[in-house]
Amino acid sequence: MNYAVILAGGVGSRFWPFSRELEPKQFMKIIGQESLLQSLIKRLRGLVIPKNTYIITNNIYFYELLSQIKGYGIPEENIILEPQGKNTAPAIGVCARLISLKDKHAVLVVLPADHYIKNLPDFRKAIKAAIAAAKDNLLVTIGIKPAKPSTAYGYIKIKNKKVEVKEKKSTKYYQVNKFLEKPSLVKAKAYLKDKRYYWNSGMFIWKASVFLEEVSKYLPGLYRQLASVKSKDDINRIWPRLKPISVDYGIMERSKRIALIPASFYWTDLGSWDALAEVFPKDSKGNVLQGDTFNLGSRGICVFSKGNRLISTIGVKDIVIADTPDALLVCGRDKTQEVKNLVRALKNSNRKEHLAHLTERRPWGSFTILQESFGFKIKLIEITAHKRLSLQRHKKRAEHWVVVSGQAKVTTGNKTKTINSNESIFIPRGIKHRLQNPLGIPLKIVEVQTGNYLAEDDIERFADDFKR
Amino acid sequence: MNYAVILAGGVGSRFWPFSRELEPKQFMKIIGQESLLQSLIKRLRGLVIPKNTYIITNNIYFYELLSQIKGYGIPEENIILEPQGKNTAPAIGVCARLISLKDKHAVLVVLPADHYIKNLPDFRKAIKAAIAAAKDNLLVTIGIKPAKPSTAYGYIKIKNKKVEVKEKKSTKYYQVNKFLEKPSLVKAKAYLKDKRYYWNSGMFIWKASVFLEEVSKYLPGLYRQLASVKSKDDINRIWPRLKPISVDYGIMERSKRIALIPASFYWTDLGSWDALAEVFPKDSKGNVLQGDTFNLGSRGICVFSKGNRLISTIGVKDIVIADTPDALLVCGRDKTQEVKNLVRALKNSNRKEHLAHLTERRPWGSFTILQESFGFKIKLIEITAHKRLSLQRHKKRAEHWVVVSGQAKVTTGNKTKTINSNESIFIPRGIKHRLQNPLGIPLKIVEVQTGNYLAEDDIERFADDFKR
Repeated sequence: MNYAVILAGGVGSRFWPFSRELEPKQFMKIIGQESLLQSLIKRLRGLVIPKNTYIITNNIYFYELLSQIKGYGIPEENIILEPQGKNTAPAIGVCARLISLKDKHAVLVVLPADHYIKNLPDFRKAIKAAIAAAKDNLLVTIGIKPAKPSTAYGYIKIKNKKVEVKEKKSTKYYQVNKFLEKPSLVKAKAYLKDKRYYWNSGMFIWKASVFLEEVSKYLPGLYRQLASVKSKDDINRIWPRLKPISVDYGIMERSKRIALIPASFYWTDLGSWDALAEVFPKDSKGNVLQGDTFNLGSRGICVFSKGNRLISTIGVKDIVIADTPDALLVCGRDKTQEVKNLVRALKNSNRKEHLAHLTERRPWGSFTILQESFGFKIKLIEITAHKRLSLQRHKKRAEHWVVVSGQAKVTTGNKTKTINSNESIFIPRGIKHRLQNPLGIPLKIVEVQTGNYLAEDDIERFADDFKR
Repeated sequence: MNYAVILAGGVGSRFWPFSRELEPKQFMKIIGQESLLQSLIKRLRGLVIPKNTYIITNNIYFYELLSQIKGYGIPEENIILEPQGKNTAPAIGVCARLISLKDKHAVLVVLPADHYIKNLPDFRKAIKAAIAAAKDNLLVTIGIKPAKPSTAYGYIKIKNKKVEVKEKKSTKYYQVNKFLEKPSLVKAKAYLKDKRYYWNSGMFIWKASVFLEEVSKYLPGLYRQLASVKSKDDINRIWPRLKPISVDYGIMERSKRIALIPASFYWTDLGSWDALAEVFPKDSKGNVLQGDTFNLGSRGICVFSKGNRLISTIGVKDIVIADTPDALLVCGRDKTQEVKNLVRALKNSNRKEHLAHLTERRPWGSFTILQESFGFKIKLIEITAHKRLSLQRHKKRAEHWVVVSGQAKVTTGNKTKTINSNESIFIPRGIKHRLQNPLGIPLKIVEVQTGNYLAEDDIERFADDFKR
């Protein structure tokens, strides 16, 4: 049976300020109405059934992931949570182990959740060929024909001859000579001219058993830990002992049985704002102008807007502008690789913009901070149909709620009241309360908090549907 | 007696998005805690007494101006309101006429409200010398020694010889050869090398009577209208008949009795974002970084922030970033003269960002739109001590008010209630109501409007302290 292993644990700081530590790239709707993860799940149709699709991510993304996979038929038990990121080898390893416990003959299609692909039929053809090759007990990787001398990707050098798959002679693969790290521009230019070089797409296809064999050979420490795993419950036990290591460095650069299936589809890992610009339509001056923009005479600029504001540009060249309600980035197009350094610097400066958006998602919906000022804070709260917040109490703040759409069921102390649209209720400081959306439509509430201390940590929970 | 005539009617679209049609540059706190107008008023101390200081502006700026001059001792009756902008000749003309009706021998110091000057003692010295020269029945202008080959300023060419003022031999002025319009760069470079060229600062000093004589000679149509003015009430009558014309073009370029007093102080008309950059301190890479900024490796950039957001920059060069809550400008430093074209384009596109900020001032205080969405709108309203809004009614919206600081006296229908901080009140649709701040401290209210039509024009006023 074929299985998908989707790697969805990335932090994706390169798309800051659109991505945040708590809202990484794979969950973002970068292009169109689906997130990158959702697009990937749809791409898998006809290759792997949803029941066999596994997703591994960091446990802080659990509720986000749950809401993202809703309606795609992937069982909740297929979500595998890492207590912390340990890079790809442990992540793929633990998935391979768990799946092989169920199905000894499992073939895994390992895919990063945050890449962008065009040309679906060619994608499926390549994966099918890779699955066929994986049955010859190979570690199969999808190689992308370089379209430019990129210094942002790892490369794979093939041996020249094509080899036929044993059981399916019509499918051919290349044996791999070696894996190469991100090259200098000079080398990348040479690789571009030489037909033997491919981009390493990070898509891998192999039998779980074959991969675990290779892990036992090249990463015996990891293998020992994986061998002790009997169920998902064991992850928390073994995880702290694992060394972070990538599958490329740990396995692919060493294994002797690697095959490459060349891909003919468009692929990008969306590794930077500049890479993102590539997939958007441009005007006659090479500008990507997304959102509410007004431009006079600029060239080669890329404007991406998540804010609610007009972005106007006059006579600027080759820059990226990425705007959100609490943080703006203006960056040279040749410097977008440095965004991750900026994010690190923000983190080290004890700021908060690297962490979350002003709109923060919660398992019950989301809230947006509209104003924070001395003595008060204003939030717009949206509660998903039929969801409720925890029964809670605040020591230091009172709350006024005005229902602006939908209907709220509000418990304060021992009483429960229905508050309709255009009605309001006051929650005094120190009173236990609970907010619930009893209807099948979203509930929107404007909350005005008052008090001298208004941080999120002033909350005491007594009962919670989400076990927080 | 000496009088000041402050020209405060400019629209100042060159500082968009900081300046707006309803909040022009002269009222902005560009540098420090005073607006450009307030700095000018302070500069006049010791030259002209507040009782003799007149300010002419567009009537839409009346309440703004009133709040700006509070505490400076300028009588309200010295505010002269233009029904619409007709450029400087009619504005100065009507002030000269009104002042000369009171004082035949008045000497006027005519100053634009939106310029920036450093070195106060030298400014006063120059104005005093100009006043002395004006007594010789001359039209005196202050000339600025060019510091660079600017193409943004008009120039004045002097005759070489210095002339002594009759009654005050120690004061000398230059006779003027001619006024020159904004030059090409080639010409500006030539002017910079030639000692006979000065920048035209737009500061003029003359007897009201002498100026009116010159108006009668060179702008007889304007003179006829001015001669019919007996009081401020006549302005509305004559104004529609006047042709817009600048004093430079209408008088200065033609008059035969012009004198120039050279200034030694630093002056800029702050005519563009780039000009503004000049007056701010720079880091070692030539960056002006005002507000909440985070920069990696940029050079020669100018960041100005009125928003509440982090502005981060990576590896950009020679651009201006000006950020406000509803509009962002990113502009090449060599293109800042084009901002006015952008503003015109916005206006022609029926947008609203050229007109006002999200925070709008009112005679009773201000409000800020925090969120506008389908079916509701959230505002933060600030009411100045002891002020009250009009008695009003809305046909299409209800309002929830939460007092977050201060105290409100609220009339709804026939009842008046005191609402304290952390209390709220509901104003149903169609009910007459009035909001008042009874205390000597500011009152802050969060207003949540609900309804299907939430525009400002849904207001019926029954009584108003501000006669709107």
